[in-house]
Amino acid sequence: MSSRTADTAATVTTGPIEGSSKHYLTVEHLRIPQRRVHLTNGEHLDLYDTSGPYTDTTATISVEAGLAPTRNDWDRPDPVDGAATQLAWARAGIITDEMRFIAAREGVDAELVRSEVARGRAVIPANHRHPELEPTIIGKQFLVKINANIGNSAVSSSIAEEVEKMVWATRWGADTIMDLSTGKDIHQTREWIMRNAPVPVGTVPIYQALEKVNGDPTKLTWEIYRDTVIEQAEQGVDYMTVHAGVLLRYVPLTAKRVTGIVSRGGSIMAAWCLAHHEESFLYTHFDELCEVFARYDITFSLGDGLRPGSIADANDEAQFAELRTLGELTAIAQHHGVQVMIEGPGHVPMHKIVENVRLEEELCNEAPFYTLGPLATDIAPAYDHITSAIGAAMIAQAGTAMLCYVTPKEHLGLPNRDDVKTGVITYKIAAHAADLAKGHPNAQQRDDALSKARFEFRWTDQFNLSLDPDTAREYHDETMPAEPAKTAHFCSMCGPKFCSMRISADVRAYAAENGLETAEDIEAKIAAEMAAKSAEFAEQGNHVYLPITEKV
Amino acid sequence: MSSRTADTAATVTTGPIEGSSKHYLTVEHLRIPQRRVHLTNGEHLDLYDTSGPYTDTTATISVEAGLAPTRNDWDRPDPVDGAATQLAWARAGIITDEMRFIAAREGVDAELVRSEVARGRAVIPANHRHPELEPTIIGKQFLVKINANIGNSAVSSSIAEEVEKMVWATRWGADTIMDLSTGKDIHQTREWIMRNAPVPVGTVPIYQALEKVNGDPTKLTWEIYRDTVIEQAEQGVDYMTVHAGVLLRYVPLTAKRVTGIVSRGGSIMAAWCLAHHEESFLYTHFDELCEVFARYDITFSLGDGLRPGSIADANDEAQFAELRTLGELTAIAQHHGVQVMIEGPGHVPMHKIVENVRLEEELCNEAPFYTLGPLATDIAPAYDHITSAIGAAMIAQAGTAMLCYVTPKEHLGLPNRDDVKTGVITYKIAAHAADLAKGHPNAQQRDDALSKARFEFRWTDQFNLSLDPDTAREYHDETMPAEPAKTAHFCSMCGPKFCSMRISADVRAYAAENGLETAEDIEAKIAAEMAAKSAEFAEQGNHVYLPITEKV
Repeated sequence: MSSRTADTAATVTTGPIEGSSKHYLTVEHLRIPQRRVHLTNGEHLDLYDTSGPYTDTTATISVEAGLAPTRNDWDRPDPVDGAATQLAWARAGIITDEMRFIAAREGVDAELVRSEVARGRAVIPANHRHPELEPTIIGKQFLVKINANIGNSAVSSSIAEEVEKMVWATRWGADTIMDLSTGKDIHQTREWIMRNAPVPVGTVPIYQALEKVNGDPTKLTWEIYRDTVIEQAEQGVDYMTVHAGVLLRYVPLTAKRVTGIVSRGGSIMAAWCLAHHEESFLYTHFDELCEVFARYDITFSLGDGLRPGSIADANDEAQFAELRTLGELTAIAQHHGVQVMIEGPGHVPMHKIVENVRLEEELCNEAPFYTLGPLATDIAPAYDHITSAIGAAMIAQAGTAMLCYVTPKEHLGLPNRDDVKTGVITYKIAAHAADLAKGHPNAQQRDDALSKARFEFRWTDQFNLSLDPDTAREYHDETMPAEPAKTAHFCSMCGPKFCSMRISADVRAYAAENGLETAEDIEAKIAAEMAAKSAEFAEQGNHVYLPITEKV
Repeated sequence: MSSRTADTAATVTTGPIEGSSKHYLTVEHLRIPQRRVHLTNGEHLDLYDTSGPYTDTTATISVEAGLAPTRNDWDRPDPVDGAATQLAWARAGIITDEMRFIAAREGVDAELVRSEVARGRAVIPANHRHPELEPTIIGKQFLVKINANIGNSAVSSSIAEEVEKMVWATRWGADTIMDLSTGKDIHQTREWIMRNAPVPVGTVPIYQALEKVNGDPTKLTWEIYRDTVIEQAEQGVDYMTVHAGVLLRYVPLTAKRVTGIVSRGGSIMAAWCLAHHEESFLYTHFDELCEVFARYDITFSLGDGLRPGSIADANDEAQFAELRTLGELTAIAQHHGVQVMIEGPGHVPMHKIVENVRLEEELCNEAPFYTLGPLATDIAPAYDHITSAIGAAMIAQAGTAMLCYVTPKEHLGLPNRDDVKTGVITYKIAAHAADLAKGHPNAQQRDDALSKARFEFRWTDQFNLSLDPDTAREYHDETMPAEPAKTAHFCSMCGPKFCSMRISADVRAYAAENGLETAEDIEAKIAAEMAAKSAEFAEQGNHVYLPITEKV
């Protein structure tokens, strides 16, 4: 890896987020990271933190050495019926260190974590070969998570760039990342990412398998695929997208669509099925795949290879036929003690979003739903982070556990560093909006703290409590003089002379003096005045000077 | 105005949007503008067009001269009971030229336009003094509209900039604009905007009135306010925000809020009420105001001066108390034959959004709802165009007729030209997503045309059919070689070697050959193979090479 050391080391981003510092909750031998935001009024707020040691000024970061393998010291229960998985242990009533870590991280009871995992309604993607991981949980009873896709392609980008994209994405809040590399150096790129990733890493093994047959889907075999899965399992991949629901008989259902098959994995398997006129080897060998996953505790992300690629194709026969098959496969995987999540669309108009969640829960035993957006309209390429954030917020409110981000480059090109940040921040917004709507106990604390800071003109606190302190500060400083304005009791909207926020302070003083608490109190207190006013009102009501001609 | 001619003329944007040209529908003596998108396959798509003559290459644009006063030639029925308004005429069964123009523009029947206006469920803001206007309708049976706020402030910006912002905002799709100027030259700035605006223009007269008393709310009087309204009415302002629902007795209800009163107009009136300990002159003189509005056909936009300024304050007693009063005022205004819309929040978590629409419709006789966002969370300053687009799409789906845009600078500073474009495009997304969800007859045509172009690799058509062709093209060209790629049958996501879209073409061929149409056909056709497969499956199911140690 030495040849790439220099530029990799050179580009990885470290240091705390503006106004915050790393803080650790300690539970027995576990250290749970938090982002502590320091406020100018002496208070502080601790936030869920996905950024890993990179934002800890006391940590030594070496991309070549990788992160410290902290989980090696954690308890590892014996396999249960051959499965060494969080699901198997949860069913056996065992609360693992991963579950304890997550309970503290989410601010919930460890028993809730165990029971939701046992129920198959939440997953903890944590390959035993990924000891650098800070475990996270994906399930509708917990904070909505977001995934950021990275990965080089045949067209562009280097290993160093991909590692930095991973660090960069988790810095801004990505809960998991997927390495979708399709070009050269797939194995080496993934090795760099795994050894430096504090979050669960997902892959789509069929992509690498396809490289091994020089991009010709018809040359794929079960053996090539299986060996690729094992290769990636050994590297520590935490969850894998498997498009085992794309059955030969479903493929023709896409023929009359506006946008056919848009899932890369889905179309690879469709091509294979058509060429061989046989059922997908992912389906016919699914049990074997489950045995591999059970040994490493890899979580299935059952792919929706027939998801709609446009508003016109949403919720159609092909999509829901595949979803039914994913339901069958969920039962098989869970029978093997393997954790499962289900991937979802894609492109769906708002009025068809809830049905996707309802059906997924019904057909897939409430396995965590993991959706890509969905985009609520197709007419805004270059703004699909926004078209999809609308759908993402709604589908998360309805119960989706994890949202796969979409960047402004979706449908147009590959995201750069700025696009990754924009995609992550946009999806943190959608996820948090859903946490608020679902009434997650701790979600509103941050909104309230920021709103209070805004109302009290603590500009710096408003910036530092936001998802992106740097950009908030930059935008403010564009129209306002920098330092003095940070404490100025006015903003550029109304100007120095008048301020609505200031008047609200007078209102409080007034209410305090007059001891007015409820509408009724006030009603009584000024009934008399009102009567007088009405009289006045009636008298003067009927004439007013109008300097306008008949033409008008 | 001559002193400002040069720079104004210099900065106004003209010329068609990339790939489109101005097209006119002709109905009797009316010419209804459309944006015609020309596709590379010889087809074209005509879109609703708000950009006015600025995008018509055959039009002569002179900012000093202003736009041609086309409506001067239109029929103007006599007043009905003293009201020369679209509402009065609609009630009298008269279909005006404005209604005919709108019917053609929306692709609906003119009688639907008349009946919705007569019912008070839609408004046509069209001051007789604004003959340059291309009439638009705001009501839940029609396309969801968006408003863009512009206006200089005590802190920055020139008249020329404001005119350009108006032209720029309508170019990208703003259906109306509001001039919220608060600094110097308010009258002159507005005059420039009115004479050059092809869309309805709204104002908040209390802002200018406040300037007349040097920014001291307590010095305001009914007379100063009334004269300001008449001054603006004479200039042709189409709708005015009036915070007549901020009653003295409601003010103390905001005392315990996290963010008190955040509406500028609301806090001005609250300050006045508190200082004089009297009821708001906007409320006590409301009948007189109606008489002025009835002469010019100015539409009320009844302001929500007590709207919540944070998630914590959403749907509280102060907000809904004012809404009840707005309901009373709606009845009074409509009794005078004056058109009314109702302004709404602000900041509302997703699960409290629908209640706002339900209550507004119940209390305000279904007068068109006009909301500001709402923001679905408070934690993302610098991204509030996105936090609010989520709320805006949902509230529009629930029945809101017009959405007031929010730019990335919300809460931080004044929007510049780029912020205005970003805000407008973001809100076109929210409005269109709602049009799709509400099943507007023509909405999905554009999505389907763009998706078809995407699927057929007609990149140029995909760009030109989008809300922002320039940015879509720019993003594409960042990762892909420019010209050749425009017709390349692959994109940068998968690279040249493999393409999911191409495989879909094979699927269609396969389906065609095999004549497979439904899941049943296929079920039958391959039942045999499946049986064989299952057998195989069972045999080979139980052993797989696993090169991993016991430790794992």
